[in-house]
Amino acid sequence: MEFKIHKKSTSGKARLGEIKTNHSRFETPVFMPVGTLGAIKGVSPEEVRDIGVEIILSNTYHLYLRPGHNLIKRHGGLHRFMNWPGSILTDSGGFQTLSLAKLRTISDDGVTFQSHIDGSTHFLDPEKVMEIQKALGSDIIMTLDECAPFGAGYEYVLNSVKLTEKWAKRCMDNKGDNGQALFGIVQGGVYPDLREMSAKGLVDMDFDGYALGGLSVGEDKHTRERIIGPVKEHLPEEKPVYLMGVGTPEDIIEAVKMGVDMFDCVMPTRNARNGMLFTDEGKLVIKNSRYADDELPIQEGCSCYACTNYSRAYIRHLFLSREMLAYRLTTIHNLYYYTNLMYKIRDAIRQDRLIEFSNDFYSKRISN
Amino acid sequence: MEFKIHKKSTSGKARLGEIKTNHSRFETPVFMPVGTLGAIKGVSPEEVRDIGVEIILSNTYHLYLRPGHNLIKRHGGLHRFMNWPGSILTDSGGFQTLSLAKLRTISDDGVTFQSHIDGSTHFLDPEKVMEIQKALGSDIIMTLDECAPFGAGYEYVLNSVKLTEKWAKRCMDNKGDNGQALFGIVQGGVYPDLREMSAKGLVDMDFDGYALGGLSVGEDKHTRERIIGPVKEHLPEEKPVYLMGVGTPEDIIEAVKMGVDMFDCVMPTRNARNGMLFTDEGKLVIKNSRYADDELPIQEGCSCYACTNYSRAYIRHLFLSREMLAYRLTTIHNLYYYTNLMYKIRDAIRQDRLIEFSNDFYSKRISN
Repeated sequence: MEFKIHKKSTSGKARLGEIKTNHSRFETPVFMPVGTLGAIKGVSPEEVRDIGVEIILSNTYHLYLRPGHNLIKRHGGLHRFMNWPGSILTDSGGFQTLSLAKLRTISDDGVTFQSHIDGSTHFLDPEKVMEIQKALGSDIIMTLDECAPFGAGYEYVLNSVKLTEKWAKRCMDNKGDNGQALFGIVQGGVYPDLREMSAKGLVDMDFDGYALGGLSVGEDKHTRERIIGPVKEHLPEEKPVYLMGVGTPEDIIEAVKMGVDMFDCVMPTRNARNGMLFTDEGKLVIKNSRYADDELPIQEGCSCYACTNYSRAYIRHLFLSREMLAYRLTTIHNLYYYTNLMYKIRDAIRQDRLIEFSNDFYSKRISN
Repeated sequence: MEFKIHKKSTSGKARLGEIKTNHSRFETPVFMPVGTLGAIKGVSPEEVRDIGVEIILSNTYHLYLRPGHNLIKRHGGLHRFMNWPGSILTDSGGFQTLSLAKLRTISDDGVTFQSHIDGSTHFLDPEKVMEIQKALGSDIIMTLDECAPFGAGYEYVLNSVKLTEKWAKRCMDNKGDNGQALFGIVQGGVYPDLREMSAKGLVDMDFDGYALGGLSVGEDKHTRERIIGPVKEHLPEEKPVYLMGVGTPEDIIEAVKMGVDMFDCVMPTRNARNGMLFTDEGKLVIKNSRYADDELPIQEGCSCYACTNYSRAYIRHLFLSREMLAYRLTTIHNLYYYTNLMYKIRDAIRQDRLIEFSNDFYSKRISN
C-alpha cells in the first residue's frame, strides 16, 4: 500500500492524500461504506462503484462465522466472492466480540466468545485473526485489539492498552508477505495518557497505518475530539489515520480538521433502511406525511440515481408498502451523500478553504 | 394498440404476434412481470428493461388503496411515477376483491369490500374502475369482472357470467378516447357452456383483446386446458388472448400451444424471494446445503446479471444472511428465465418447431 500526502491545510491538521492498494487508488479523506457480510446492504457492487466508492469495509467477525473464511478463500477471496473490484479493509473482529458476541472472556492468549447467531463457542487470537484476514485477501487488515467497554475505569483500560499492544506485536509477527497493509489500533478509552501510551507503543512497531478504536461506543463528541487531537500528535505524519466507526457528517468534518484520513460507519446505510435521509439541510424522514404528495427528489440538485429518477412521494409510497426498492433508493442516496461530502471536503482542502467549507456546511443545516 | 400476427404454428393454435402500444412494441406470446404496487419487487425498472421486458402488469386494487390513483395522476401517471418507460397493463381489481379484501358483497351495481390494509370500506363499480385506470394511464386496461370462488356451483357461476357481461358493457361505455386498449374478461368457471356464453357476450362488444379469468384460483392443469381450447374457438383470431395469473413454465408452454398470447404471474418474482429458482433442469432451492460450497452460477450458461457475476455459494450465503441483494439476484434470474423462455417459444413458433421445442424442454427436466 502506498500513501502520499498531496496538500496540507494551513488552518489545521487536515490533509489531502492518496492511497494505492492492489485493487484501487483513491484520495483521502475517504469514507468506506460498510459491507458487513460481504455485501453492502441494499445495493449492488456496481451501484456502490457508480457512486464513486473505491474502498469498502467488511467484518472479519461476521465472515469468519458465516460463511467462513476458508470457504471464501476457496472461492478466490472476498473480492471475487462478492464481485467487488475495488479495495477492501477488514476489521479484526475485536469490536464485535464486545458489541455482538455473548459471554466474552479475554485472556492474554485471545478472546473466547459465543456466536451471536447460534451460541457456538469460538476462540480468536492475533494469529487466527491474521489467518482469517489473509484468507479473505483484503487490501488493508487490522490488528486484534481489546476494545474496552464504554465507561471502563482507568485500571481496566490500562490493562486493555497493554494487551492490545501485545496482540498488535503478535499480529505484526504474523503479517505475511502478500502485500496486505496492516494497521495498528490505538485504544485507551477516554484517558489521554493511556491513548498516548497506546499510540507510542504501536508506532514503535511501524504499522502501515493507525486506527483510533473505541471512539464510537458511546463517547460524546467533545470527549472524542479531546482524544483525537493529542493522539494524532504521536502518530507519524506520513501514515494514514483511520477513525473507526465514526460517524455523522459533522463528526467527519471535525475529525478531518484534526488530521483523520479514513472513516467507516453504518450510519448512511442503516439510516437509509430506516427512512432517515441525509440532505444539505439536515435529516429528512421520508415516511413523514408531509412528503406524501411531494414531487421533489430527496435532495434538489442531487445527481444520485434515486434523486434523478424518483420523487419523495414515490419513495415514501415504496417505504409504506415495504417494497425493497425503497431501501435501495435511500441507500444509494445516503451513500452518494457521504461520498459527495468527502469529495467536497477534499476539494476544500485542495483549495485550502476547509474552514469556509465547514462554516458554509453548518450554516445550511435547518434541522438535525 | 395494434396487434399483428406474423406466423401461425401448423401443428396447433400457437401464433407469433406483435403488440404496439403508446409506450413500447413487443412480440407475443409475452410474459408480463407483476409490479403490484408500482414496483417489481426486488428489482429496478432498468434491471427489468435490461432483461428484455417491454410490458409489466400492475394492480388497480392495490394502487387505488395505496397511494391512490389521484395522487398518481397528479404525478404524471403510473409510468412517470414509477420510472417505467415500457408498457403497463393494469387489471381491474375484480380478482383482488375476491382474493385479498375482506367482507366482499356484490350487487348488480358493483363490489363493496373492506381494504386488506386497514379495514376501511370501499366500493368499486365499472365506472370507478375505468376512472382509476384512466388516472393511472396504463396502456392496456381491463374490465371489472366477478371472479367466482374456486368450486362455485353452476348457478353461482351463471349469475357471475351475466354480471361480468353487464359490467363489461358499462366499462366499454366508459372507455374514453385516450388510446388505452380495453380487454374483456371471460369468466364461467369450470363449465364449458358458461365459458362459451361469456366469450360470445364479450365478443359482441368488440374488445381490443380478451382475457381468460378465474383459471389461476385452484383449478388443476387438466381442467384449465379443457377450458382454454373451446373458449379460444369463440374468440376472434385477430385479437390477443391473455391468460390471467398463469403460471409455471409448463403451464405457459401448454397454453401457447392452445393459442394464448399473453401471460402474467407472480411466480418468478415471489418464488425468487423464497429462494426457489427456475433452471432448465427444474427448480433449484438455493438455501439447500448442497450449494454451500458451489462455485457454479444458478444456471450454467445463463447470461443474466446474477449468473454472470455470482456463485450459488455466494447467493446462498446472502440468503441465509437475509441480505437484500439475495432477493434481487434471484429475482433477476427468475425474470430472465421467464423472459428467455418466451423468447425461445417465439423463436420456435417462428421456425414452426414448437412441438420439438416443447419435447426438448420436458426432456431436460430432472426435477419438479
